[in-house]
Amino acid sequence: MEEPCVVGVDFGTLSGRAVVVRVRDGAELASAEHAYTHAVLDRTLPDGTRLPPDWALQVPSDYIDVLRNAVPEALARAGVPAGQVIGIGTDFTACTVLPVLADGTPLCELPKYTARPHAYVKLWRHHAAQGQADRINALAAERKEPWLERYGGKISSEWEFAKALQVLEEDPEIYHRTERWLEAADWIVWRLCGTYVRNACTAGYKGQYQDGAYPSPEYLAALHPDFAGFVTDKLDQPIGQLGDAAGRLTAEAAAWTGLPEGIAVCVGNVDAHVTAPAATAVEPGQMVAIMGTSTCHVMSSDQQASVPGMCGVVDGGILPGLWGYEAGQSGVGDIFAWCVRTGFPAEYAEKAAAAGQSPHEYLTALAAEQKVGEHGLLALDWHSGNRSVLVDHDLSGLLIGQTLSTRPEDVYRALLEATAFGTRTIIDAFEAAAVPVQELIIAGGLTRNALLMQIYADVTRRPLSLIGSTQGPALGAAMHAAVAAGAYPGIRAAAHAMGKVQRRAYLPDAERAAAYERLYAEYRVLHDYFGRGANDVMHRLRRIRAEASA
Amino acid sequence: MEEPCVVGVDFGTLSGRAVVVRVRDGAELASAEHAYTHAVLDRTLPDGTRLPPDWALQVPSDYIDVLRNAVPEALARAGVPAGQVIGIGTDFTACTVLPVLADGTPLCELPKYTARPHAYVKLWRHHAAQGQADRINALAAERKEPWLERYGGKISSEWEFAKALQVLEEDPEIYHRTERWLEAADWIVWRLCGTYVRNACTAGYKGQYQDGAYPSPEYLAALHPDFAGFVTDKLDQPIGQLGDAAGRLTAEAAAWTGLPEGIAVCVGNVDAHVTAPAATAVEPGQMVAIMGTSTCHVMSSDQQASVPGMCGVVDGGILPGLWGYEAGQSGVGDIFAWCVRTGFPAEYAEKAAAAGQSPHEYLTALAAEQKVGEHGLLALDWHSGNRSVLVDHDLSGLLIGQTLSTRPEDVYRALLEATAFGTRTIIDAFEAAAVPVQELIIAGGLTRNALLMQIYADVTRRPLSLIGSTQGPALGAAMHAAVAAGAYPGIRAAAHAMGKVQRRAYLPDAERAAAYERLYAEYRVLHDYFGRGANDVMHRLRRIRAEASA
Repeated sequence: MEEPCVVGVDFGTLSGRAVVVRVRDGAELASAEHAYTHAVLDRTLPDGTRLPPDWALQVPSDYIDVLRNAVPEALARAGVPAGQVIGIGTDFTACTVLPVLADGTPLCELPKYTARPHAYVKLWRHHAAQGQADRINALAAERKEPWLERYGGKISSEWEFAKALQVLEEDPEIYHRTERWLEAADWIVWRLCGTYVRNACTAGYKGQYQDGAYPSPEYLAALHPDFAGFVTDKLDQPIGQLGDAAGRLTAEAAAWTGLPEGIAVCVGNVDAHVTAPAATAVEPGQMVAIMGTSTCHVMSSDQQASVPGMCGVVDGGILPGLWGYEAGQSGVGDIFAWCVRTGFPAEYAEKAAAAGQSPHEYLTALAAEQKVGEHGLLALDWHSGNRSVLVDHDLSGLLIGQTLSTRPEDVYRALLEATAFGTRTIIDAFEAAAVPVQELIIAGGLTRNALLMQIYADVTRRPLSLIGSTQGPALGAAMHAAVAAGAYPGIRAAAHAMGKVQRRAYLPDAERAAAYERLYAEYRVLHDYFGRGANDVMHRLRRIRAEASA
Repeated sequence: MEEPCVVGVDFGTLSGRAVVVRVRDGAELASAEHAYTHAVLDRTLPDGTRLPPDWALQVPSDYIDVLRNAVPEALARAGVPAGQVIGIGTDFTACTVLPVLADGTPLCELPKYTARPHAYVKLWRHHAAQGQADRINALAAERKEPWLERYGGKISSEWEFAKALQVLEEDPEIYHRTERWLEAADWIVWRLCGTYVRNACTAGYKGQYQDGAYPSPEYLAALHPDFAGFVTDKLDQPIGQLGDAAGRLTAEAAAWTGLPEGIAVCVGNVDAHVTAPAATAVEPGQMVAIMGTSTCHVMSSDQQASVPGMCGVVDGGILPGLWGYEAGQSGVGDIFAWCVRTGFPAEYAEKAAAAGQSPHEYLTALAAEQKVGEHGLLALDWHSGNRSVLVDHDLSGLLIGQTLSTRPEDVYRALLEATAFGTRTIIDAFEAAAVPVQELIIAGGLTRNALLMQIYADVTRRPLSLIGSTQGPALGAAMHAAVAAGAYPGIRAAAHAMGKVQRRAYLPDAERAAAYERLYAEYRVLHDYFGRGANDVMHRLRRIRAEASA
């Protein structure tokens, strides 16, 4: 038999990617991607049913299609016989949740519920439960719920409780028909091995599972009488630690994937968290920023602290034995894509096509010619709300400084910079809470934009390390599969053997960093003015929008 | 002989338009337009010399080309023999100023100065003299100069003194070689009749000529020692009243235009002010908003008051015997054009072309489907600075409320609305200063956008009257020519015979008006926060931009 391999499958926002990895050294032998047929449902359901603003749904069968297509294709490309594969691991976006029956059947697959929005998967960026989140936070603060400080003082509208409460309040029938309310991360593992295990990562970060307990029935009842039994009836389930085997590949899943029945299936994990060991970040203070449509910041520490506006701190949430911190920016690549979608004129499109460049490459090349501050603009990167440190998805974007000379590349660069200021704000919050950030490692698709990377180095005034893989999450998932299959004693050992990083790939330039310091100071003033209640105009505009759209 | 006619020539920002008008009833027999070859120089001089940010220059020979081309073409189209024309009148953008020799030769036409930016015409929207304007204002306030309150407490960087002081300070040689510093409005009349007469309108509004005097030599010396003699050496000249004849058409100008030598040439006038009688606004309280690249608000009143942030109040500045008030928005159509230039994607361009619509028509049609507030956006219309009521051209644009769902038509509509909020702010300032606005009449190219007009009616909560001509300024110039030629005893009589208006063309809708009231309140909060010093970030961004570009 040839050398053992593992398969990692990364379920992203728009597609799933499978990678075949050699257990010995983490070599990525081949990968394949499969786009979700329904992508993100944010205007209508597949049958045309209209969705309100801020909704974002998905269709669970699209995930199964990734198993059916991407996994066999990656195997074929790798030229690896199925028999060499000893385990499969997965990672998912989070908090991406769905209502299912006790046997795992998604409610949206029941014919009577296909036209009911609340029967579908709520994608992480479904932002229509802010009202519920506000009440969850207000009540928790009032009752001094002990778990609240583990989430920087605020839980997010993106998470399990807010989204479930929205279902209960807006479509009680769907809520009551829900037998399990679970992460897609755990649902896909259930489909693979036939066992429903809640992974420690999402249970902690997205389900408020702390010190062995969820929020109490009394607290939940105070939110809504019918919500009292939510945990016991629909949520609670054995917890699996990251890297543990959840079970063995079923015959059905073996048929989908072409993998051998009975190989190890790792417990679920989250795209960001699984990437940390893939980037060799297994020591305290190594922050990994996974930059894609959004950015997730994950870091382990031997200290437990409350960082205002962090997404959460979870014991063993990233690595066993360390406190795992998570923070994030809910819009990053999504904002750049929006800029191209709405601010890339025909004349530019022609020139980019003639130069053989994508819109992003074309705008980046133009923006790269500028000095810091030359465009005269400043933006707030809240087009998809603010995850950290404000934890408010009813915030929105802002651009200031436009003149009649402002060009598309100016706006584009201002948006790149705004997201860098957002990351700087998060790092500053960690350091101010005495959780030092020793190294900043960047992973994710945006690492290929050299201008963006240099801006991040200049704005954060830190050298950047880069992950040495373009498939960080899938590699991380594969590494966890290797652990689940018993090839390594734990994820640290797997990281040392299979992880990849390039240190000091971008270094800050002193002059540019100083220039950005002035702009960052302006950003922080606007950040606090619009984000901390001095002028709640963003909230009021959103309310007016909702009323006008009703 | 057939019925007498007059010719009006309107010198705009990008082109000049000539119209042939029947004296008896104002019928517009034909018109012709001629675009300026050099348009606006805002990046380089014709020889490639680079210009700093905020500059906007023009080339004076482009104006002569309008006389050579548009006037004969309009005459030919009208089928009117030249002998029927009894007078010619002109109007110009203002404050558009240039340095010339004593014989009227522009300095930029001297071979040694063709590469010197300060030798060219400074267009009204040249906004690089804000530093000079700030000092002019601070010193005038400190010395309690009596003329200051006639300009709402602030003179503009767009005007004669600020622009001249910029020349002195940045290119003293050009300043000292300047024998006359004059409005293009008066320069073109000088070219037509051989006589240099300063018109009462620009002398008052742009040259601080009040109660028969200019700012004193002592004041000017305190600004800069070499500026003491500016008025006596370069500015002072006999004043001509609006509608007076400045002289008779010279043989040279007759050859350019094809008009008879010796006919009346009216004193210069300003595009906005000349439009008031064309729209029949000859009574106190009739405000005319001339909406094009920028908007100018002109209104006569029998009361003299200080309206904070108005551009000025001038005795007889619009109509003899009344106080003429001017206010304005420095960017309106310019902002919409910028939006199309930078925010109109290729996909939209294709659909617009397929529908046979211009980008503006296409975006307007999409925007018109929305309810008030549905886009969730709010903008500040300061992309070209703020003329009234903040009088600050170092301000800049702002857009707030963007989400990943924000579309180009959303931004476009928010910008339309922002300019309406700007006009509402101006009307509110007049009323608060006890200068009542009795009627709002809209003129200018933007009247053809029905959505925009309805938004203005809804936001201002007033019925709109519309001028009955698409060539308001040129018609007004022609009417003044008729007065100069003696066909009417004064401009009021000419207005009654030749002016055109459609009353109550758009009526406010109560529901939309109420919805806009909420958005206007938000606009005013941002207006004051960014415009009145609470957060001077726009100024700082502009300074940073200038430093980075240096």
